[in-house]
Amino acid sequence: MSEAIELRKPYLLFLGSADSAINAKTAAGVAHWRPEHCRAQLRLDDKTVDLGFPDMSVGEAAAAGCATFLIGLAPVGAVLPDSWLALCVAALEAGMDIASGLHVRLGAIPALAEAARKSGGRILDVREPPPGLPCGTGDRRSGKRLLTVGTDCCVGKMFSALAIDAEIRKRGVKSTFRATGQTGILIQGSGLAIDAVVSDFLSGAVEVLAPANDPDHWDVIEGQGSLYHPAYAAVSLGLLHGAQADALVLCHELGRTAIDGNYQDFPIPPLEEVIALNLQVARRTNRNAALLGLSVNSSNLGAAAATAAMAELEDTLGVPVIDPVRTGAAKLVDELNT
Amino acid sequence: MSEAIELRKPYLLFLGSADSAINAKTAAGVAHWRPEHCRAQLRLDDKTVDLGFPDMSVGEAAAAGCATFLIGLAPVGAVLPDSWLALCVAALEAGMDIASGLHVRLGAIPALAEAARKSGGRILDVREPPPGLPCGTGDRRSGKRLLTVGTDCCVGKMFSALAIDAEIRKRGVKSTFRATGQTGILIQGSGLAIDAVVSDFLSGAVEVLAPANDPDHWDVIEGQGSLYHPAYAAVSLGLLHGAQADALVLCHELGRTAIDGNYQDFPIPPLEEVIALNLQVARRTNRNAALLGLSVNSSNLGAAAATAAMAELEDTLGVPVIDPVRTGAAKLVDELNT
Repeated sequence: MSEAIELRKPYLLFLGSADSAINAKTAAGVAHWRPEHCRAQLRLDDKTVDLGFPDMSVGEAAAAGCATFLIGLAPVGAVLPDSWLALCVAALEAGMDIASGLHVRLGAIPALAEAARKSGGRILDVREPPPGLPCGTGDRRSGKRLLTVGTDCCVGKMFSALAIDAEIRKRGVKSTFRATGQTGILIQGSGLAIDAVVSDFLSGAVEVLAPANDPDHWDVIEGQGSLYHPAYAAVSLGLLHGAQADALVLCHELGRTAIDGNYQDFPIPPLEEVIALNLQVARRTNRNAALLGLSVNSSNLGAAAATAAMAELEDTLGVPVIDPVRTGAAKLVDELNT
Repeated sequence: MSEAIELRKPYLLFLGSADSAINAKTAAGVAHWRPEHCRAQLRLDDKTVDLGFPDMSVGEAAAAGCATFLIGLAPVGAVLPDSWLALCVAALEAGMDIASGLHVRLGAIPALAEAARKSGGRILDVREPPPGLPCGTGDRRSGKRLLTVGTDCCVGKMFSALAIDAEIRKRGVKSTFRATGQTGILIQGSGLAIDAVVSDFLSGAVEVLAPANDPDHWDVIEGQGSLYHPAYAAVSLGLLHGAQADALVLCHELGRTAIDGNYQDFPIPPLEEVIALNLQVARRTNRNAALLGLSVNSSNLGAAAATAAMAELEDTLGVPVIDPVRTGAAKLVDELNT
C-alpha cells in the first residue's frame, strides 16, 4: 500500500545565505506554522536572515537530535551550489535525512545517493509522489474533509488550509492539514505532490493522502490549481473527486480578473459560476458537499477597502468571507459542523 | 520539443496462439482499421486465428520489408511467455522495431534492451508517454478538432473516433485520428497514452498530440474516461481543455445506468446534464465548442429497439445519433462543417 511522504522531526533548517524571510520562503513557512518541529537553523553567513532558532553546524545539530536537514530555500539558478552539496553530504554522514522541495532531484545526484546509501539516511525529494499509488475507488470513507479550491493558482489555497486547520485544532477539535504541494509538504512534514501524480491515479492519490479517519476528525486538504485553469484544471478535478469533501472553501485574490501568467485571455468567471461548478463536481463523490465560505487575499487593497469588499461578497454570496492574514479563519470555522 | 510516438510501417502482426479475433483484439483492430499498414502475420500454431495476411516467420517478414513487430494480443497472465520473448529478440536482430501495448514494459526486460541496443531497433512501449511534455498554454491554434467524450469508460470513444475519421477522409476532407490509449496508438501507428501522463502536463500533452494544423484539417481525438467517473474524470477534463474541440461527440452505451465495474454507486446522470457539463468545460478553451451528436453502443438491443431508442434520443436532444457499428458515422459527419 502506498503512503504519503513523512519527514522525521525535529529539523535543522538550512537557510543558505538568504537575506530575507521571503528568500527563504519554505523555511519561513515551516518556522511560522510548525515551530515545534524546528530545533536549529544553519546560516551561511552573518547577513543571512535569522528565523530565531539556535544557529548550529551540521554536527552540532545532529548531536542535538535533529533528524532532518530541511532545505529551506531555492538556489539562484537551477543547479545545487557546491557548498550546499557538501552540507547535504555532511548531514547524511551525521545520520540525518535530507528533505528538499527543489526541482532538481537530490536523490539523482551521485554523491548524495552514495552518501545516503552508506549512512542509511533518506533523501526526500518531496516533489516526487510515492510509488504504487492506486486508482480511485470512490468508496465513501469516514471522517470529515475540507478542501480549498481556487479561482486560479497562487490565490492562497495552502495558506488558507493551514490557517483553518490551526483554528480547528485551537478549539480542541481533531484536524490534520493534508499537503499536496512541496511547500505544504515541508511545512506539515508529510503529504503528497499531487501535480506530479500520473493522471490515472490522481483521485486514488487523494484517497491515500486523506484516508478514512475518526468520524469527528477533519482533514483540511490543500487544493491545487483551478477548474478554470487551462493547464492545471485536471489536477483540481482529481482533488475534488478524491477528497469527498464535506466543505469547500473558495480562495480568490480580490481584484484578479484573469488567470495569472501567460493566461490573460482566460478571465476569471463570476464567483457564483465558479462556486456552482466546484460544488457540482464535488457532489459527484459526496452529495453533501457544501460551500463553507470564501478565503480571499486582499493584499492589493487598504484595510477599509478590503473590509468593504469582503462585506459585499458576504452579502452577495451569503457565506462568510475571511482573509486569513487580516482576519484569521475563526469566522469560517464558526460555521463548521465541528 | 516532445512528440507523440510514431510506429514504422508496415507491420508483422504477432497473433500468438489466440484462438479468436477477440483474443487478438489489438491485432484485429489494426487489421480492420489500417490493413494498408499490415504486411504479414505470425501465428504460433494452426489453431491461431487467421486475420487474412500472409503467414511469415520473423526472418521472412524482415526480408519482405516489415519494419515493426507488433504484439497484437495480451498474454494470459502478467508475464511475457518465453516463446514471445525469443521472437521479440529475433525481430530486433532482424532489424525490426517492437511495438507493444502491454502493461509489462518490454524496454525494461534486459534481454530485449540488450538486443535493441545491439540492433539499433526501438522498443515502443506505447503505454509510456514521451518525455519532456510541456504544460498547457491554452493558446488558440489553427485546424479543426473533434473530441469524443463519454458517459463512462468503455462506451465506444475510440471506435467512434476511428469511424468518424474514416468517414471524413472518405469524403476527401483532411482528417487524422489522434490516439490517446494503447489500442488506438497501435491502430493509428502514432499517439500518446494520455492516462499515463503526469497530471500537470495533461492539457499540454493534448496540445502536443493534436497540434496546430491546416485550417481545413480535422483532428479526431480519442477521448478517455468520463467527467463523471470517480477515478478518471481528471483525464477527461485535461483532454477537454487541451483539445480546444470545435465538435464534441458524446459516446454512451444504451441501457447502462451506472459507472461500470466497482462504481455501481455512481449513476450515469441524465444525458442533458452530461452534455451541459462537457460543453461548459470545453468552452473554457474554445468558446465555439458545440455538440455534434451522440454515438451509442446499442449492442444490448435488437435492431428495431435500437432504431427506436436512437430516434427517441434524437427527438429529445435535437442532435443526430449514430451507432457506428449499426449505422456508420455518415449522419454525424453530414453535420460537420467540413
